[in-house]
Amino acid sequence: MNADDFARHGHQLVDWIAEYLGHSERYPVLPRVAPGDVRKALPAAAPEQGESFDEIFRDFERVLLPALTHWNHPGFFAYFASTGSAPAVLAEFLAAALNQQAMLWRTSPAATELEEVALGWLRDLAGLPSAFEGVIYDTASMSTLHALAAAREAAVPGVRQYGLAGRRGTGAVRVYCSEQAHTSVDKAVILLGLGHESLRRIAVDEEFRMRDSVLREAIEDDLANGIKPVAVVATIGTTSTTSVDPIARIADICTAHDVWLHVDAAYAGVTALLPERRPAFAGWERADSIVMNPHKWLFVPVDLSAFYCRRMDVVRAAFALVPDFLATPEESRGVRNLMDTGIQLGRRFRALKLWMVLRHFGAAGIRQTLAEHMRLAQLFASWVAAHPDFEVVAPVPFSVVCFRAAPSTVPVGELDALNERLLEAVNTTGEVFLSHTRLRGVFVLRLAIGHMRTGESHVARAWALVTAALGQPT
Amino acid sequence: MNADDFARHGHQLVDWIAEYLGHSERYPVLPRVAPGDVRKALPAAAPEQGESFDEIFRDFERVLLPALTHWNHPGFFAYFASTGSAPAVLAEFLAAALNQQAMLWRTSPAATELEEVALGWLRDLAGLPSAFEGVIYDTASMSTLHALAAAREAAVPGVRQYGLAGRRGTGAVRVYCSEQAHTSVDKAVILLGLGHESLRRIAVDEEFRMRDSVLREAIEDDLANGIKPVAVVATIGTTSTTSVDPIARIADICTAHDVWLHVDAAYAGVTALLPERRPAFAGWERADSIVMNPHKWLFVPVDLSAFYCRRMDVVRAAFALVPDFLATPEESRGVRNLMDTGIQLGRRFRALKLWMVLRHFGAAGIRQTLAEHMRLAQLFASWVAAHPDFEVVAPVPFSVVCFRAAPSTVPVGELDALNERLLEAVNTTGEVFLSHTRLRGVFVLRLAIGHMRTGESHVARAWALVTAALGQPT
Repeated sequence: MNADDFARHGHQLVDWIAEYLGHSERYPVLPRVAPGDVRKALPAAAPEQGESFDEIFRDFERVLLPALTHWNHPGFFAYFASTGSAPAVLAEFLAAALNQQAMLWRTSPAATELEEVALGWLRDLAGLPSAFEGVIYDTASMSTLHALAAAREAAVPGVRQYGLAGRRGTGAVRVYCSEQAHTSVDKAVILLGLGHESLRRIAVDEEFRMRDSVLREAIEDDLANGIKPVAVVATIGTTSTTSVDPIARIADICTAHDVWLHVDAAYAGVTALLPERRPAFAGWERADSIVMNPHKWLFVPVDLSAFYCRRMDVVRAAFALVPDFLATPEESRGVRNLMDTGIQLGRRFRALKLWMVLRHFGAAGIRQTLAEHMRLAQLFASWVAAHPDFEVVAPVPFSVVCFRAAPSTVPVGELDALNERLLEAVNTTGEVFLSHTRLRGVFVLRLAIGHMRTGESHVARAWALVTAALGQPT
Repeated sequence: MNADDFARHGHQLVDWIAEYLGHSERYPVLPRVAPGDVRKALPAAAPEQGESFDEIFRDFERVLLPALTHWNHPGFFAYFASTGSAPAVLAEFLAAALNQQAMLWRTSPAATELEEVALGWLRDLAGLPSAFEGVIYDTASMSTLHALAAAREAAVPGVRQYGLAGRRGTGAVRVYCSEQAHTSVDKAVILLGLGHESLRRIAVDEEFRMRDSVLREAIEDDLANGIKPVAVVATIGTTSTTSVDPIARIADICTAHDVWLHVDAAYAGVTALLPERRPAFAGWERADSIVMNPHKWLFVPVDLSAFYCRRMDVVRAAFALVPDFLATPEESRGVRNLMDTGIQLGRRFRALKLWMVLRHFGAAGIRQTLAEHMRLAQLFASWVAAHPDFEVVAPVPFSVVCFRAAPSTVPVGELDALNERLLEAVNTTGEVFLSHTRLRGVFVLRLAIGHMRTGESHVARAWALVTAALGQPT
């Protein structure tokens, strides 16, 4: 494809994307395809001779487009939403063309230093002290993995060299998080070789927040039994209900026992940009590490997870390893080589989209959108609360509402099935996509607001669909 | 940014990128910036009010563009090259706009199934049996990490639940690779908690290939000492010299001792598309897992690493973990949920660019480019070999030439310094970027051909610059 062809196809694609982003409601948010439909519609083998981009794009429209889940749809209320905002999409286009691989400062001074700049901006906007050094990973799973790897490095002398089972056997260790913490903590603990049983899930209170008194007892209990506490993962904005663990009190416990504190603020961290929201974050500045995900609620497409650490030297101690073929003269000049702070050697130019988003929307614009999403969540919750056949099941600290239908005419034992039917009914309309969770054993609907283009009309429509579905014969 | 503004900026960007990709030689391949230049040229804080895309792009051109290392430059001969080919750049643009997050089949049927299709095509083109199931990770580091995590899962009963140091302590374990294997193996072993000392690097022969007899002895020695062999990582195309370990004989050893065989073909794997190159791969079809990186030599921009595994059930046993909030009805219908095969929950739509590249260039087009790069490497090596003051330091099985200046007039003890000066001299021209390695203790220059736009003229220019630099007064 020469430059002229690239330009021609590129211009067509720009028009297609502009149209798509402007009218994503025209597609059902959840596609109407069955497992295997895409696979069966495509040839079993790659072509021997090359094909034109036009042909390929026709197959994209014919086969793939009807099988997309439209994360761009303003009725996407499932999980946590993600916005590929216009400036960030352009940034990704540019980043793909530049094809930077920022393993070393030398292999991309721009990507290496822009990562530092953009993460510094975000840190300062969130009110975190400059003692937090930042690095970008792809996902929160990886940020939390690196946090716990660093915690292991700090807590288990010689683990890098001798491992956990070697001649300097370390004995049992423990990581703590709440019952509501994300499964990325489980996966990290397993991958690190600590064993799933080393994760102790701490009970939560009636508002789904970690009970710090139970945490304290658990740590003391473990210490008394010769089990070494390695880390506590506290969450600001848990996945099911967005509950907020009592960070300051947990930080006190971690300080007292010299345990690494990692704060998972992957979803809600960006709300620290709003000064009136800072009380929920009190104490997070005392964490050893923090994750927040711009690809969740800061209008950059996946993937971009921001990891902040007060002890990046420990991360480097856990991960840095420079073979001959990657040694560069700049090391003596104090450059940061991003490969030293992670398991991944290859690193694409993710900082570009974050930098462009922060500049294009500005701090004020970002605050306004986040505040609006949180207002809409309160509004939706108020409708639920006012309806005799529905109930709000958890507090709404951010932009997620957990609720369910609970008509007095339906036996309690049948409520789960009723709500499952409701979820299925609203999702099959193609107008909205809600997800669910289980809280205290019951099936709960979950409306998560976070797409930049979601407005009051979309939230109102979701509510209309939910209430209408309840009225439907089953 | 509304649809019209997006279209306007998008069209400008298409023209800019077309111009850039068509004329990447106009930029110095290594930028002429000092550490800190980018950071100092940008404001210390994010703007309060949003800025126009034009303003942001002006800063991109003013500050970032001069600080890029041009991986697109046809004179990029360092490390392993990477091409962001035109169709793949368009695919990434589209993927960013679609913003799929393919953790579950439900969250992107298209991305989930296209990954299976595109990886199936690549597997078949490479001549691997269909018993290999594929999954895309971001980097080879992650592919190898998952391979070794699966190997640990298979070798250490209960490791997922009890860990390596828990109440079912596992004793010492071992992973093997050659002295020339990539440091991603070290990093994986460390992260997995096996300890760096559990990695035993096996001596290589005069052509930098693992000595299988030494491997066999090492495994027998370890077994005799109660150390459990977990995995062997064999490499097809090592990083320094692209040497090829004797895969078939290593596979025999692994079979005999029931040890997981992981083949690192991150760079050279794609050459299996050329039937005449298949002899180098003999035996890799018996591996438990294989990694090859389309973002190295298959014309997709970073990141995309293809991981193939005969025992994906073991990968799933190591990683699958489904919380309530991610349970979907499709699981009962046998869908693959990509989150079950990895540590990362979030997964962007990487398959799109691979699919578009395979279709746009076709198998024949890809073979032609790979063959041409290998022809150019032989040509360059022939020039080196014919020059009285230079020597080829290692065989050239693929597209990398390791060489150095060794004029008879220069004392052996000064050759390293001479070659370091040569490297610095050619790289400061901005016309080419070569890297280096150390082989048998000596400093060696390394010319790696792999960019789609690199032709004979660029290789000839590199040679002219190298020989001219030797003639320069120092």
